[in-house]
Amino acid sequence: MTRVFNFSAGPAALPEPVLRQAAEEMLDWHGSGMSVMEMSHRGREFIAIAAEAESLLRQLMAIPAHYKVLFMQGGAIAENAIVPMNLLRGHAGADYIDTGEWSKKSIQEARKYGRVNVAASAADSGYTTIPPRQTWRLDPGAAYVHICSNETIGGVEYPDAPDVGAVPLVADMSSSILSRPVDVTKYGALYAGAQKNIGPAGLTIVVVREDLIGQALSITPSAFDYKTVADNESMYNTPPTYAIYIAGLVFKWLKDQGGLVAMEAHNRAKAALLYDYLDRTAFYRSPVARDCRSLMNVPFKLKDDALDAAFLKGAEERGMVQLKGHRSVGGMRASLYNAMPIAGVQALVAYMQEFEARHG
Amino acid sequence: MTRVFNFSAGPAALPEPVLRQAAEEMLDWHGSGMSVMEMSHRGREFIAIAAEAESLLRQLMAIPAHYKVLFMQGGAIAENAIVPMNLLRGHAGADYIDTGEWSKKSIQEARKYGRVNVAASAADSGYTTIPPRQTWRLDPGAAYVHICSNETIGGVEYPDAPDVGAVPLVADMSSSILSRPVDVTKYGALYAGAQKNIGPAGLTIVVVREDLIGQALSITPSAFDYKTVADNESMYNTPPTYAIYIAGLVFKWLKDQGGLVAMEAHNRAKAALLYDYLDRTAFYRSPVARDCRSLMNVPFKLKDDALDAAFLKGAEERGMVQLKGHRSVGGMRASLYNAMPIAGVQALVAYMQEFEARHG
Repeated sequence: MTRVFNFSAGPAALPEPVLRQAAEEMLDWHGSGMSVMEMSHRGREFIAIAAEAESLLRQLMAIPAHYKVLFMQGGAIAENAIVPMNLLRGHAGADYIDTGEWSKKSIQEARKYGRVNVAASAADSGYTTIPPRQTWRLDPGAAYVHICSNETIGGVEYPDAPDVGAVPLVADMSSSILSRPVDVTKYGALYAGAQKNIGPAGLTIVVVREDLIGQALSITPSAFDYKTVADNESMYNTPPTYAIYIAGLVFKWLKDQGGLVAMEAHNRAKAALLYDYLDRTAFYRSPVARDCRSLMNVPFKLKDDALDAAFLKGAEERGMVQLKGHRSVGGMRASLYNAMPIAGVQALVAYMQEFEARHG
Repeated sequence: MTRVFNFSAGPAALPEPVLRQAAEEMLDWHGSGMSVMEMSHRGREFIAIAAEAESLLRQLMAIPAHYKVLFMQGGAIAENAIVPMNLLRGHAGADYIDTGEWSKKSIQEARKYGRVNVAASAADSGYTTIPPRQTWRLDPGAAYVHICSNETIGGVEYPDAPDVGAVPLVADMSSSILSRPVDVTKYGALYAGAQKNIGPAGLTIVVVREDLIGQALSITPSAFDYKTVADNESMYNTPPTYAIYIAGLVFKWLKDQGGLVAMEAHNRAKAALLYDYLDRTAFYRSPVARDCRSLMNVPFKLKDDALDAAFLKGAEERGMVQLKGHRSVGGMRASLYNAMPIAGVQALVAYMQEFEARHG
C-alpha cells in the first residue's frame, strides 16, 4: 500500500491514524459486536460517541456554554438556505460580504428568503482581496452579517473576524474551521461542511448562539430548524452517525497534536513554504493579495497554461494528486488542510522547482 | 471478535462481507492511495464509485430510464418537507394516508407547504391495519397520494402498491426498500433513508419520475430541489461520498445474493419463523392484523410487561441486541432487514421459547 499526498479541496485527506483506527474498529467497536455504522443512534454506544465528539469540539474551539453545537446534513450549500430560514428572525434582510464563489452562492440562495444587502464586494479585484472593513456599507437593521471566512476556490481568507458591532456575525467556515484558533464569541453562528478539516462529507457542523435560535420561518423543514435540532440534541432525524464518529476521531487526533494553537503553527509553516517559493519565482504566481492569502487553499498559475497538463501528470507520477485548480479559475490549487503533512508540501515545492528547471 | 445479532430498527445491521471489504479498503481504495472518504467527489475514482452504485440500484429495482435516481441528505424526515416543496407542482394540496407514526410525521410536515387531505387513517385500529383501498376519500385534484410503505414503529406494511389512478403515488420506503421487488412504474416518486436496507445513515435515496421534476416551490433550498440535484447528477452540493460507496457495496452484495427475488424469499422465511411462533403462543403476541404484517419490523408484546427488562437482559447476554420496542409503543421490536441472517431469527425464537418456559 502506498498512500499519496492528496491536495484535494474537499473531500480531502484525513489523518492516517484516524483511518487505521476506523479500519480496525469496522466490524466490532470496543467489543460491542457492531460497526459504528450499524448502531442505533439512540443506543448507549452511539450516544457516547456523539457526546464525546461534541465535547472534544467544544474543547478544541473553546465553545462557550451558551452556544449550541449542531450536527446537521446538507453541507454549506444547504446551510446557505438554512441560515436565512433560521436567522432572519423577523428582520427584512441581512448583509452579505462578497469575496468569491462561495459568497456568491450564499447571496444567491439567501435572496429566496429575504432582502440581501451586498455590503461589500471584492469583484473589482477579481476576488483576490478582502474588501477593507471601513468600506463596508452595513445596514444597522440587518438580521446578521454573513461572511465566508475562507474562499476555497479563490484562496482568500479573512486574517481575523471583522468587527460588525451588535449585529450577529455569521460565517461559512467550511474550509478554515479547526485550522487555527478562533474566538467563537465574535460570531452569532458559524457553520462548516465536514469534508475538509473535520471528517467525511455528509456532516455539517453548526455552532450557534442560543439566543438566536427559535424564530425560524414557518417554511423551515423541521429537520433544519435549529431549535428542533438543538432540542433533540441533533437526533430529531437520524444523524449521519458514521461521519460523526470519524469527526470525533479527528478531533481526538487534533487534541493529541496539541490542539488548534499547534495546528496554526503547522499550517503556517506549510503555507509559508509554498507561498515563499511562489514569491521567489517568476515561473509560478499566486493571484491573491498577500494580506489575505488562505492558509488552507493555495491557488497558483504556471507562467504558461499550456504546461498545466504536463505539470499535473508529473505530479501524479510522483504521488501528488488533486492539484488541478477549480474549473472556474483554472491553474493549480494545493489544499493544505490539517491532515496534509509538511512532507507533502516539501515534496510539492521540490517538484515545482524541478519542473521549473526543466520548462523555465 | 464476536459479532452480535443486531435487531436495531435503524441504523441497522450491515452484511459482514461489506464491512470486511470497507475495512480492507479504508486506507487505499483499489491502489489509489486514498480512502474513499478522502476522494474529491469530482475525481475519476469517486465518479466511478457513484456511477456503479446507481447502476446496481437501477438493476436491482428495475428502475426505468425515465426515472431519476438522486443521492440526497437529511433522511425521510427532511424528505417530508422536500417532497411537497418539489411535488405540489401548482396544486393546492396532496392526499396522505395515515398508517402510523411515520405517516403522521409526513402529514404534519406537509401542512407547512400546502393543504393536506388525510384520505384515510388507521387511527381507529390503533394503527394495526392498512385502511382498505375502497374506503380512501381521494381528491382527484391532489398533487400526489403519499403513503408510508412500511411503518417502522407500528410494523404495518402495504402488501402491494395501492392503485390510485392517474394521481402520482409517492412512498416513504425507508424501511422496506430492497426487501422485495417493487414495480417502480406504479410510483411517481419513492424515497428512503439509507440506514435500514441500504447503508450508513446520512444518505437518502430518491427515485422520481422525470416529468414530475422542475416545478419546485420558490422557497426550496437549491440543495433539495430535485431538478438541481438531477441536473448535477447529485453533485450540486458535495454528496455523502462514503455512504454512497458503502451503499454500492451493499447493492453488489444484494446482487450476489440473487437480487430482490432471492431477498424476498429470505425475508419471508425469517418473518414466517417469528410470526408463526407469535401466533402459536399466548405468552407473546403481535398486535398487527395478519394481512399487513411487516416483513421488516416485527413488534411484539410479552404477556406481562413487568418481564420486559428481564427479557431484554437475557437477550443481550445471548448476543441479541436492540430488541426494545420504540418508546411510543413499548414492548419489543425485532427488525429483520436484509442483513439479518436466518440464524439470528432462529436464535431469537429459541430464546423466546426458553424464556416462555421459565416465566410462562
